Order: sequence, then structure tokens, then C-alpha cells
Amino acid sequence: MEGIDASTITRILDKAEEYVEKNRQVDKKSKSLTGRTLINLFFENSTRTRTSFELAGKRLGMDVINISAQASSISKGETLLDTAMTLNAMQADAIVVRHPSAGAVQLIAEKTNAHIINAGDGAHEHPTQALLDALTIRRKLGKLEGLKVAICGDIANSRVARSNIYLLKTMGAEVTLVAPPTLMPTGVAGFGVKHTIDMRAGLKDVDVVMMLRIQHERMAGRGIASVRDYFHSYGLDRTKLSFAKDNALIMHPGPMNRGVEIDTDVADDISRSAILDQVEMGVAARQAVLELLLGS
Amino acid sequence: MEGIDASTITRILDKAEEYVEKNRQVDKKSKSLTGRTLINLFFENSTRTRTSFELAGKRLGMDVINISAQASSISKGETLLDTAMTLNAMQADAIVVRHPSAGAVQLIAEKTNAHIINAGDGAHEHPTQALLDALTIRRKLGKLEGLKVAICGDIANSRVARSNIYLLKTMGAEVTLVAPPTLMPTGVAGFGVKHTIDMRAGLKDVDVVMMLRIQHERMAGRGIASVRDYFHSYGLDRTKLSFAKDNALIMHPGPMNRGVEIDTDVADDISRSAILDQVEMGVAARQAVLELLLGS
Amino acid sequence: MEGIDASTITRILDKAEEYVEKNRQVDKKSKSLTGRTLINLFFENSTRTRTSFELAGKRLGMDVINISAQASSISKGETLLDTAMTLNAMQADAIVVRHPSAGAVQLIAEKTNAHIINAGDGAHEHPTQALLDALTIRRKLGKLEGLKVAICGDIANSRVARSNIYLLKTMGAEVTLVAPPTLMPTGVAGFGVKHTIDMRAGLKDVDVVMMLRIQHERMAGRGIASVRDYFHSYGLDRTKLSFAKDNALIMHPGPMNRGVEIDTDVADDISRSAILDQVEMGVAARQAVLELLLGS
Repeated sequence: MEGIDASTITRILDKAEEYVEKNRQVDKKSKSLTGRTLINLFFENSTRTRTSFELAGKRLGMDVINISAQASSISKGETLLDTAMTLNAMQADAIVVRHPSAGAVQLIAEKTNAHIINAGDGAHEHPTQALLDALTIRRKLGKLEGLKVAICGDIANSRVARSNIYLLKTMGAEVTLVAPPTLMPTGVAGFGVKHTIDMRAGLKDVDVVMMLRIQHERMAGRGIASVRDYFHSYGLDRTKLSFAKDNALIMHPGPMNRGVEIDTDVADDISRSAILDQVEMGVAARQAVLELLLGS
Repeated sequence: MEGIDASTITRILDKAEEYVEKNRQVDKKSKSLTGRTLINLFFENSTRTRTSFELAGKRLGMDVINISAQASSISKGETLLDTAMTLNAMQADAIVVRHPSAGAVQLIAEKTNAHIINAGDGAHEHPTQALLDALTIRRKLGKLEGLKVAICGDIANSRVARSNIYLLKTMGAEVTLVAPPTLMPTGVAGFGVKHTIDMRAGLKDVDVVMMLRIQHERMAGRGIASVRDYFHSYGLDRTKLSFAKDNALIMHPGPMNRGVEIDTDVADDISRSAILDQVEMGVAARQAVLELLLGS
Repeated sequence: MEGIDASTITRILDKAEEYVEKNRQVDKKSKSLTGRTLINLFFENSTRTRTSFELAGKRLGMDVINISAQASSISKGETLLDTAMTLNAMQADAIVVRHPSAGAVQLIAEKTNAHIINAGDGAHEHPTQALLDALTIRRKLGKLEGLKVAICGDIANSRVARSNIYLLKTMGAEVTLVAPPTLMPTGVAGFGVKHTIDMRAGLKDVDVVMMLRIQHERMAGRGIASVRDYFHSYGLDRTKLSFAKDNALIMHPGPMNRGVEIDTDVADDISRSAILDQVEMGVAARQAVLELLLGS
């Protein structure tokens, strides 16, 4: 999302709206990308994102191939670029890549002529997540500009946070980052957003609360004594939520750790939680990206 | 199958007949469910059942997505219901679920609006197996009503047995369960079927012998000394089979443990064994279920 | 490839040419095999070959199912033939099989009526690799007859070498095998080809240098002291390549071990290396095989 301008983002979101409607029909299939090849190349597991892209491709008429790292030639010692160039040579039109290393997707993009779509690279970016989040907010609240959005949790390690910061700033929203000191990125002062270690202060009067998934294994040695302590200070519950605006949206990219970063009561509040809407918007947003990259 | 009435079963079997014929053509594809989404969500491995549903969906024109537990978000701590509701939010029209726990599929069905199809839940039910078995019998013997059917093996742990008992009783067949005492379910007296620990007595004059797969690991501590002992008492061989009617059908849901619950000579008897017919009928039966649930 | 005559090979290569062109179009899809079922049954991992067959099938309009050994009933003790006959009973039109044991694919072919395609069986054959190699050479050099081809590396364990030897001899090429004594097959004298342990001598004036992948784990105890020693004697680098003809093609079936059997500088030489062409030709060659086996 870094460097993507507002008109491009708006064009993607507008296109995605068409697919939201289409996906609610009995026949969800369009033929705009019939005969094109989409390869999902995942070096990290992700049911949600892989399935979302697979559905997006298939509903556009594409042939979709899934490759997971475990099954790949990587385990035979092949380099990342050789794997990518091999798939490219099979005339893939688009390759969706998830990789644990920041920059890996960019590297592939430079060496292939297929359209390369970043489905998450290390702690760098996860652009389609930011797009689907923006689509969800825009549909629920009617706009992005001028909204106050809090992003809460493990900001330092989160590609979701990073992509959302780029997009939300570009679209004129005001972002506040909330995290314990050990999970706040170094250099946050240069991000052009507010930040605080006090969740109540961070949620004050916001329109949107975006929670992030916390990785249990990252807690150790970060000054977070326990899950219980984390939930007490940074888990979204009714009390902390009460500092936000009355109708503030609750968002989470999933999969959720209930009782860790978010309380079940809040996650399942059908009048406030947009978590399942995000999932629905994910397929449509990815269809829009594919269509705009590959369509005529 | 519990609670499914005879007319519904007959309607499914009649519809399945159409697909048996269609699947024998060069072009096996119909378009009745084009543009619908089928998700195979398997928390236990099963090549046979997963492939059967995948083919059923694809041959009806559906977009089919496979998700296996290993690759799923479950391994990231997400709850079963969150996984299911996520897939539901992607506008899955049908989700086929296999799960090691009895009742898990019902739980999902209550929380989603997709059609949920049980592909086996713990030791509870495996309804499409019963349907394909019924289709196989009806095609081979012309009817279900009045037939004598023996179900033999690990009844206590078998969802296949349970679903077949419900269906066969509903359709007017007479069922006899055959198992060693340790593998006979408690409460069998209330099942409304005959039962015996003597396989020869149980096979006396039956029209159909349904063998069940025995799990090696379940033998230990159940009073079964060895595979050899089990085969001696409960493995289907020529001698025991001779107690059944001359043309009795031999059935097995697969995968077979040859030399454990069934003798190779009997399994491969092309004049009697319906084991590969069962596999063929499986695809057609699942197409019928999908078509009747989702079709116009 | 053993026993396949020159006219059959030529017919496959000619048909493949059509798909090379088709795959370079925006819409790569043809409908010649619509409604047919292709099953990829892989008992060894192979991203490259599995993906190539999957794309070949899908681009011809087939429904394609992937089965990997880990997920298969094999792990439940089912025999290889029972697995194959089960898939056959589901009306598979073609089953693509990769198996670690030589002869396994033939065994399956004898017991099923689906078309069985060998995607590599042990150290025996990998016929579609030989076909794609031939297609690559014929397109680059205009012919096969009369060419001098060196095949270098672990000949003893290579199904790729074996299939290429059969095909190249049949088509009138002159083959030289290059390998260290411990990786030269016993009985090489009866192969009807030249052989040498001196790579420079083996590459003298050849038109094509086919490198083979070396399995690290096979080096130990074979008199090969280290990767460095192997590369020194048998790795393809500029110096050794200089013994071949000026425009000699560089080939490798992939995945490559850069710095082991091939130098990066040589592998990436766009004026000489046909390695990515081989990948591209792989899809087309497999489409040709499917079309000729299953088409009307």
C-alpha cells in the first residue's frame, strides 16, 4: 500500500462493490478472466487468505493452482527465485505470494513477468487486507476520510497494521496506534500517526477499533507477563470499548484469539462487530485486484 | 440419517441414479450448480470421501475448495466455529465437514446459513456412506425392503454402522450386528436390531454382508489378542460367507485391511463383491445430495 | 519411453506445438476434454510436475483432483492397488502417478481401465520429462536426429536419464553419459550409448548438455568427498561448457542445486540456458499426451 494513491484505492474499492453484490447471488461466477491462470504460492499457512484468493480467482473464471511451502521444491533446496521463475514459465498470469520474509514478494516481482500479488511478506505489508478493511469501513460508515481509527496490539510485528496505516493516511483518516511499549515499532514517531500505550486514551472517540492478532510466542521476553495481563491491559472488552464512539466498528483480521486480544462478548456483538463482514469483503476486494490487474 | 424418512431417502436414491448414468459418459459435467461454492472442510484425513465430494461438486459445475485441518487456522488456535463462520462468510453454498468429534457438524450447522453436509463426525454418523450403500444394494438386489443385512466388525466405534442402521431400518430391511463383545456398543439392545457375537449365526441367510474397517490401534486392551485371532473369528472368508445366501453381496466402506477384517479372495470376488460399486455410487449419491439441497 | 516409436513421439511433439502457442495467449483454455476427470496421484512430492499436469488438465477443460501420499489412505494401510482401483471406480479418465518404486505405475495400469500416465516411478522412467526435453531441443535446434547430447550426473539413479536415453536413441540422436564411476549405472555398456567419467571428454562438440539433479544424500559413501569436489569434477561451469559446441543448449530438469551440479552463471545465461523453456514445454507436452490419449 505504500505509495498507492487515493484514486487507485478508490477505483479498487468501487470495483469490489460490484463483486460484493455478485457474490450474494446464487450464481457467483463471472467469466471476465476465463482461461487465465492464478497460482497461490504460500510459504506460510493461511487458510483464510489462501481460500479467499482461491475463491476470488475461481469466481472470475480462472484456473487456480495452490502450492504450499511444505510441498514445494523449496524443501529440495531450490531457491525462492527458481521456484517463482518456474511458475512464471508455466504462463501463470498472476502469482499470489505469502512469505515469512519482508521483501521476498518484491524480489519475485522484479524477476518475473506474471502479476505478483503480495498476500503478506514478513512484518512488511499485507495490502489486500488493508483494502478489504477499507471496503468494510466505507460500506459501514460511508466514508474513510476524517474517520478516527485505532489500531491496537502487536504493531511492531504486524504487516496488517503497516498496510492499514499507509492506506488510512492516504485516504484521510486519522490513525492512532495502541500497543505496549515492547510491541510498539521503533521509529513510530516518524509514521505520521498518533500513538499511545494507554488503550483507553487511544480509543477515545474513535470510529473504528482495529484489533490485531497477538502471537502467543511473541509475548515471552517482551515484558508481557501472561495472557491474562495482556488481556487486562490491551484486550478489547466492553469497558475499554466504552471509550470509543457509541457505534464504533469492531474489526479483527482473524484468526481471533478469543480472551487474549478480544473478548468473546465484543467479538460476537452483531450490532458492532464487522469481523465477518471483513471476511466477506476479502473475496470481493481480491476479485477487484485481479480484475483490475488482468482484465481487459 | 437419524430421522430421515423413507420418501426422502428414495428421492435421493432416485436422483442419484441419474448421476450414475451421467458419470459413465465421456462428458460427466452438468451445469446445474454452476457458480455455487462447495468447501470441503476435513479435520480428519480421508482421500476417498474428500475426493468423492470434490468430484461430485465439480461435475455439477461448482467451484470446490479443499481445506484440511493441518493447514487450517485451527492450528493457530482459532475455534471450530470461527473457522466455520469464516468460510460461511465467504458465501460458501455448502460446506462438507468431517470431524473427529460426534456432534461437531451439528454445532456448525446451527451457526451458519450454508448447507452443512456431514462427511463423518466421530462415532456418530456418516450419512452419505449409508446413502451410497443403499444405492449399491438397491441397484444390485432391486430393493431394500425385506432384505437381511449383517453389519460386522467394530460396531461400537463405527459411524458407518450407525448411519446404515438408521437407513436400513427406515427402509424396511432387517439388520443383524455382528461384533466381539468388546466392540459391540453398549445399549445395543435398544437399537431395534438383532445382534450376535457369533459371525456364522449372524451371517445365516443374509442378503448382504457389510464389513467394517477395524482400526488396528483399537484392538489392544479390547480382549482381541491379535490380528490373526480377529481374522479367525470375525474376518470375512469363504467359510463364514458360506452361511449367507448364495448370492449375498459383499460390501466394505474402505479402505480395506486385507487379511484383517476381510480375506483378499472374498474382497476380489467379482461376482459377489460390491466394494468398487460402492465407490462409484458414492460420487453419484453425493451429487444427488448436493443437487437436492442446492438445486432450483 | 521404452518401446515408443519415432512416429508416435513425433505425433506428440507436433500436437504439443499447438499448445505452446495456445498457452501464450491471454485465454489459455480449450474445451477439448471438458467433463473428463484427471487425478494426480503423487506418492512423492513434486511441485513442478504436479503443477504442470494440473495446469495441462485444467487448460484442456478437465476436472482435476490432487492426491498426495501423506493425505491418502495409504497411511491407513490400504494397498497401492486398492487406492488406484478406488480412484478408477470414481470414473477417473486419467490418473497421473508418481511413485518411489520402479514398476508401481505399470502395476496400476494393468489393474485399471483409466489411462495411467507415469509421472516418474523410482529410478525407472519419467516419460513426459523426456518428451518436454525433446520438444525443447527440437524447437531450439530444429531437429533431434543427428544431434550429440551429453547427459551428466547421477545417471544410475535417474529416471530422467533413462527416459531421455530411450527417446533420444529412437529419434536418432547420439547420447553420451557422463558420471563418476559410482553414479554410472551397472550395465551401461549394454545401453547402446557412449559413456565416460571425464566430463570434458563427454562434452566435446555436443549440441546439448543435459545436467541432472544430484541428491545430496546420495553422495555419502559413493566416493564423492564433498559438494565442492563434485562441483569441481562434474558441475557445469564455463570452463567445462567451453568443450561443447559454441551454441550448445544447457538443460536441467529442475529443481536445480546451484553451485552443486550447475554454476549460477551458466544456469542463468539467457542466450544458452533452455531451463525455463523446458518448464514451459512441460505443460504443452502434457496437454498433448492427455489430448492424444483421451481426445476424440
